[in-house]
Amino acid sequence: MVVILEKNISSEQVDKIIHTLESYGFQVHKSVGVEKTILGAIGVQPDFDTRKVKILDGVADVYRVTTPYKLTSRNFHEENSLIKIKDVEIGGNQIALIAGPCSIENEDQIFRLAKIVADSGAKILRGGAFKPRTSPYSFQGLGEEGLKLIRAAADEFNLLVITEVMQIDHIDLIGKYTDIFQVGARNMQNFALIKELGKVDKPVMLKRGIAATIEEWLMSAEYILSNGNRKVLLCERGIRTFETYTRNTFDLSAIPVVHKKSHLPVIADPSHATGIRDQVPPMARAAIAAGADGIMIEIHDDPENALSDGPQALLPNTFLKLVDELKLIAQAIGRKI
Amino acid sequence: MVVILEKNISSEQVDKIIHTLESYGFQVHKSVGVEKTILGAIGVQPDFDTRKVKILDGVADVYRVTTPYKLTSRNFHEENSLIKIKDVEIGGNQIALIAGPCSIENEDQIFRLAKIVADSGAKILRGGAFKPRTSPYSFQGLGEEGLKLIRAAADEFNLLVITEVMQIDHIDLIGKYTDIFQVGARNMQNFALIKELGKVDKPVMLKRGIAATIEEWLMSAEYILSNGNRKVLLCERGIRTFETYTRNTFDLSAIPVVHKKSHLPVIADPSHATGIRDQVPPMARAAIAAGADGIMIEIHDDPENALSDGPQALLPNTFLKLVDELKLIAQAIGRKI
Amino acid sequence: MVVILEKNISSEQVDKIIHTLESYGFQVHKSVGVEKTILGAIGVQPDFDTRKVKILDGVADVYRVTTPYKLTSRNFHEENSLIKIKDVEIGGNQIALIAGPCSIENEDQIFRLAKIVADSGAKILRGGAFKPRTSPYSFQGLGEEGLKLIRAAADEFNLLVITEVMQIDHIDLIGKYTDIFQVGARNMQNFALIKELGKVDKPVMLKRGIAATIEEWLMSAEYILSNGNRKVLLCERGIRTFETYTRNTFDLSAIPVVHKKSHLPVIADPSHATGIRDQVPPMARAAIAAGADGIMIEIHDDPENALSDGPQALLPNTFLKLVDELKLIAQAIGRKI
Amino acid sequence: MVVILEKNISSEQVDKIIHTLESYGFQVHKSVGVEKTILGAIGVQPDFDTRKVKILDGVADVYRVTTPYKLTSRNFHEENSLIKIKDVEIGGNQIALIAGPCSIENEDQIFRLAKIVADSGAKILRGGAFKPRTSPYSFQGLGEEGLKLIRAAADEFNLLVITEVMQIDHIDLIGKYTDIFQVGARNMQNFALIKELGKVDKPVMLKRGIAATIEEWLMSAEYILSNGNRKVLLCERGIRTFETYTRNTFDLSAIPVVHKKSHLPVIADPSHATGIRDQVPPMARAAIAAGADGIMIEIHDDPENALSDGPQALLPNTFLKLVDELKLIAQAIGRKI
Repeated sequence: MVVILEKNISSEQVDKIIHTLESYGFQVHKSVGVEKTILGAIGVQPDFDTRKVKILDGVADVYRVTTPYKLTSRNFHEENSLIKIKDVEIGGNQIALIAGPCSIENEDQIFRLAKIVADSGAKILRGGAFKPRTSPYSFQGLGEEGLKLIRAAADEFNLLVITEVMQIDHIDLIGKYTDIFQVGARNMQNFALIKELGKVDKPVMLKRGIAATIEEWLMSAEYILSNGNRKVLLCERGIRTFETYTRNTFDLSAIPVVHKKSHLPVIADPSHATGIRDQVPPMARAAIAAGADGIMIEIHDDPENALSDGPQALLPNTFLKLVDELKLIAQAIGRKI
Repeated sequence: MVVILEKNISSEQVDKIIHTLESYGFQVHKSVGVEKTILGAIGVQPDFDTRKVKILDGVADVYRVTTPYKLTSRNFHEENSLIKIKDVEIGGNQIALIAGPCSIENEDQIFRLAKIVADSGAKILRGGAFKPRTSPYSFQGLGEEGLKLIRAAADEFNLLVITEVMQIDHIDLIGKYTDIFQVGARNMQNFALIKELGKVDKPVMLKRGIAATIEEWLMSAEYILSNGNRKVLLCERGIRTFETYTRNTFDLSAIPVVHKKSHLPVIADPSHATGIRDQVPPMARAAIAAGADGIMIEIHDDPENALSDGPQALLPNTFLKLVDELKLIAQAIGRKI
Repeated sequence: MVVILEKNISSEQVDKIIHTLESYGFQVHKSVGVEKTILGAIGVQPDFDTRKVKILDGVADVYRVTTPYKLTSRNFHEENSLIKIKDVEIGGNQIALIAGPCSIENEDQIFRLAKIVADSGAKILRGGAFKPRTSPYSFQGLGEEGLKLIRAAADEFNLLVITEVMQIDHIDLIGKYTDIFQVGARNMQNFALIKELGKVDKPVMLKRGIAATIEEWLMSAEYILSNGNRKVLLCERGIRTFETYTRNTFDLSAIPVVHKKSHLPVIADPSHATGIRDQVPPMARAAIAAGADGIMIEIHDDPENALSDGPQALLPNTFLKLVDELKLIAQAIGRKI
Repeated sequence: MVVILEKNISSEQVDKIIHTLESYGFQVHKSVGVEKTILGAIGVQPDFDTRKVKILDGVADVYRVTTPYKLTSRNFHEENSLIKIKDVEIGGNQIALIAGPCSIENEDQIFRLAKIVADSGAKILRGGAFKPRTSPYSFQGLGEEGLKLIRAAADEFNLLVITEVMQIDHIDLIGKYTDIFQVGARNMQNFALIKELGKVDKPVMLKRGIAATIEEWLMSAEYILSNGNRKVLLCERGIRTFETYTRNTFDLSAIPVVHKKSHLPVIADPSHATGIRDQVPPMARAAIAAGADGIMIEIHDDPENALSDGPQALLPNTFLKLVDELKLIAQAIGRKI
């Protein structure tokens, strides 16, 4: 922590501030300049609230100089984390392709779509059984019945399963069926939930909250890592801005930033980011070009009758054509899909 | 729902769109203008996803004309809702005053502060026993021990208790001690939690998510009301914007807007909105002047050693002086504190 | 400027960074901690681009510790600036009241409204002759004819005039008629314009850009002050956020923050902030309660036929009633209107 | 315009609203549903302020159903606009490459960099002679001397010139030297300036304001087109959001949206969007993949001593390597650089 003192501060006040910092457990270095005196406070705990110092008399400004996250940081783990799930590895040169419907609707639907996912070369099938919906009147998912269906469909086509968990008392149930837990954007700071997911032995894909800073996102990942689970995938899915012609603003600049700050892989979700079918392909291409380690795309073969998010689902043919383009872009930047 | 068709659309296409709308259960009225044809689709369900129509060929734009919330709407309940909790009533001419520490820290602390709260004329004591913290390394609250302490302190000074609930399996426990459940900003869209709180027989104060639109906030209230609990208080606590000189942007314009759209009372929380002590009094005054039905203020008598959010806590004397000013402002607009 | 070095940096690298800093003209102090080395670089010029240091090898982070504005800063001028214009003084205990129509429309209109403004006790008449409009097809103002009318109306009722200037080659013309130049939100960073306004001998009211940080706003004020004109009024008029139920988010928390950082008076404009008549009174009250040094309110006696912004104009009676309420609130916080 | 009436409105009120709409020049169609009555008001002028209707008694909501821009709209001009400048064409299958320094600093610098630009295959040289700077104390550009230098350098290497214009009285001067006028983000709504640029016979590249909606951006383009100049290039350069780890949020989703709404080409500027060198290549790649019609990249061969924005300039070798990657990505999506 660096503490900038106000001009014309008395030496008694400086001493008092130093004393307070020491009482908080810091080791203090003082630099006296012509105009400003600066204190370096070494030994800050990641949870120290710097506002405690900011409100002291004579303090002009305070800067935290250590990141508040540790295990998530690239300082802690310099190499990219490789997350292995059965025969799939995420975070290396190979870009992961995840696809499937928004919601699992019935046996026939999930089997039909699983086949398309497998045909595309993707290794992971997505589908929601418990759905977070803004409206209490919307379809809330098939529950355990849906979990059974997606597991069976995935097994039939040799795919992994990713599905969302929304509450602690569903973790065991969902864990019986899924290979990867997904935490949705709205639950990114449901600390009770993510703390528990830190104790399971399966990977967790943590979506960025719609208004979460990159730092808060990494702090939520830290909840999972610090509870013991090191298998965390981050997922960028669009942030909320003033723009209304788009549903969200897909923050692709977050990808290189996260890669610099953290060793965890980043998946991109252009379907939720854009919310509308015809914007998914350009944004999927852009995500790969920006360096995403994986991409998750919603598909449906009868989107008019989909029980949720039909308008953002790609039709099977569009999806297969897009995957071909993504392969070329991956190649252009020296990676593979 | 109003559907604007594209110029130069063929009459076959118009018929096809009308047919699709009817298949979704709408009754359709057609207005043909010189330049544009407009369809009025009557009978929309609150959970209908208008994007389903937006992606149809020949559709230029779609507008939902009914609010997606019903029970929360002032159309449904024209009078202000009065929330009665023992001898306190919120939502009428009397403005509710809620105060107390961020966290319950120990018996002595909560009793000392409860006395100050009672001295100010406030009727409700706040204090957290389970704390949502951005960092997994921060103080997470005293748990049930804290609940016992705040209940005892409140009873001693004839106050009501409000405290936060973060997970479903704590509802019963917290319900034994509190008079009002608080749902924090980060859990505003923890749908599993708020659905359960719709089934309890105690008021719930629902904080606005840091990036929640007013509409989403009212939709989350709808989750509680539609599950049976009509005693909902809304709480504005600042939204996230691009500004960095302030912690959040306190959205006081939300107060008159919510009053127009909904019958539910709105509480204002200037402590979390500003995050720094010296901005709390001006923003508390502004909230009352803007028409808030209640105000919640954090106080502490030893903020340097507070276990959480000390920098935003008012000292007892500043608090008591502020309450005097708030009384004058309430009077200026024809209300009482 | 404080420069945080990366862990495990070699001493050669540290020397190289220090050397670079010195070549930029800084005097450098080094603090070596257990984990981190921190350099204090004293003597930074206000226009130094800290990214130049951020990209050096071995640098983890950089913090500017001096504000980039000087003359605007309260450090430079500790007392509140009092802006005197004829017999009116802004920035002291008396709160300035500014009112009038959005646009000057014709002689009769501006005289009728000037009378109402004078009746309310306000001392300053607003009205636009050159209008910045989002659409090229909208009414763009009466031009010099409008300036003549507002000057005559103001003189008749012993009022001051404030009107907007949008381009450099209008400064002389407008200067012949107005007492205060207004710079609109869209021109806050029209540096060519504000530089010229730094050379005139009349006060300038600088509106905050719709997405300007407080720091950028103060930097634009610095353009005016550093060119010689010390009579600057700041005006908060709402910022752009994700919320769509309100036109802008009125950032009242900016008021106490600006008062802390700067000596310049802050005016609040609830009419443009909310954009809709019935939200103006609560937000006007809130602005006074938050500590604004002045308030600017749009009025019209025939808003249905107003040539611009009729929907946000208060009717004369509502306006006069509001002024009475504002007086009581001013009194409650020890000020006067 | 569609007008939704309130439930339980009397037929007298409906008639009064219809009468008002007709007095504004609309032709009105009425649809009476079970719950709601909807009025379709045909014939709206692009500059009509819908708030005028929103505030009428009995009106629940109002939706504008025509876009406020006309000439800019793809409805007006279905094919992509091709902007021809000498032997360069922008807006077709070929992606335009623009590169050069932030500021023109001296003869040697601009000639050295022009050579690199030409070597890369780019056809357009950028460089600022008049610089908009947040601080009045920063380098403000070489002025006409800079214009002469960039023109000479461009001619030497057979390149076109693009440079920024900030004020009306510079248009003639700059027009003597440049091939394309650039309007910066801060001047996007400097209506006086863009109106004048609508009268010149050279292309204008209009940068999106940092907080401008896509609609406002297209409205500003409309100012130029409606004054006679049809050669407008749009340029996305990042928007302001809550995120602080990035300088701006590069809104690549704007690209497909603008392509849908308008016929004008869209250039992407990853240098200003990210503000830091190592994020430029991934974002440049993403912009091409998202469908940009051109890309503008800042380069410098001595960024440590650049007079502005050195930290975001690519070194020549990095730039040349990036161009190779961009060519492969262009190829992957069926285009050329």
